[in-house]
Amino acid sequence: MFGVSLQSSLKRAIRQGFLARQAYRMASGYPGSDEPGVCGAPDPSTKDFIMQQTMMRIRDPKVSLDFYTRILGMRLLKKLDFPDMKFTLYFCGFEAAEDIPEDDAARARWLWSRKATVELTYNYGTDTDESFQGYHNGNSDPRGFGHIGISVPDVYAACERFEKLGVKFIKTPDGGKMKGLAFIQDPDGYWIEVLKYDQ
Amino acid sequence: MFGVSLQSSLKRAIRQGFLARQAYRMASGYPGSDEPGVCGAPDPSTKDFIMQQTMMRIRDPKVSLDFYTRILGMRLLKKLDFPDMKFTLYFCGFEAAEDIPEDDAARARWLWSRKATVELTYNYGTDTDESFQGYHNGNSDPRGFGHIGISVPDVYAACERFEKLGVKFIKTPDGGKMKGLAFIQDPDGYWIEVLKYDQ
Repeated sequence: MFGVSLQSSLKRAIRQGFLARQAYRMASGYPGSDEPGVCGAPDPSTKDFIMQQTMMRIRDPKVSLDFYTRILGMRLLKKLDFPDMKFTLYFCGFEAAEDIPEDDAARARWLWSRKATVELTYNYGTDTDESFQGYHNGNSDPRGFGHIGISVPDVYAACERFEKLGVKFIKTPDGGKMKGLAFIQDPDGYWIEVLKYDQ
Repeated sequence: MFGVSLQSSLKRAIRQGFLARQAYRMASGYPGSDEPGVCGAPDPSTKDFIMQQTMMRIRDPKVSLDFYTRILGMRLLKKLDFPDMKFTLYFCGFEAAEDIPEDDAARARWLWSRKATVELTYNYGTDTDESFQGYHNGNSDPRGFGHIGISVPDVYAACERFEKLGVKFIKTPDGGKMKGLAFIQDPDGYWIEVLKYDQ
């Protein structure tokens, strides 16, 4: 009798725990959504939205494309030239070569459905204008944007390679308080965090 | 005979075309990779790299979390508090509620393998400090970072909703030269491009 009663109490407790968790999910949407300001259940019309791009201005496309493709390993997904407005956009991302459509129009359509691209904006002439002062990376006054971040399988191996390739470091993986993550700089001085994706 | 010869010529031409395309792919990597500066074949050690985050500093987490979750439709994926260093990080992204692990440690590990998150950095006190001047969005001097961009199924419908919710517009979908894309502002003034993903 005692055994049966314990078992049914246990079952009841498990069931109550399950119901409580379900009620919590229904009310607040998901773990963490009880944080002040957070909307537990986003509007259904937003469900197919994707974060497609992060735009940064660059001084010299040859130098930046070399960095983002040869050093970081991204691919140039699309170049869009706007001669009337005197700028060119270079979209780069971590995409497999075989996924990139060869047809130009198909490639443009495909691009807008890709998550997590970087959009490098080149305003004509900055690469040859000796009076150009360079772009602001947001980490000194006035501050704002901080960095982009890439996840890699092995931060130490990635950073050893970056070091050999002459990449500038803000923080090496073992520098500072936080171990196992690094900050490097792109050719314009923008910060790029390097973090491990299965930490 | 003529038919057979035509057929074999056609086959040869197709095969030659295929070989030429393959040779091009092997030499230059992928369409667009002949652009100056672009590395056609990124180093194999970079093949699992992902673009994980874009970090922006925010004045008030309650206000920004409301904007990124209720208005944009992202979810708060993880909050990381660093009381010793007096800041908190809020990672948000377009992820389904059911994909977010409930267990706190599992959720942290899962986060680093998510593409395209925004990392909102709150430095303690900016929300209550009346002398705080606000953050710089990079689109006035000194310029640098430009914006993040979200792709949506219908720019006009999304913007109609944003307008009803009182979102600030830099450019409405029909404003300016480029039709069908918009720029809105988040509570700190950062620009967010709204573009159609199957244009």
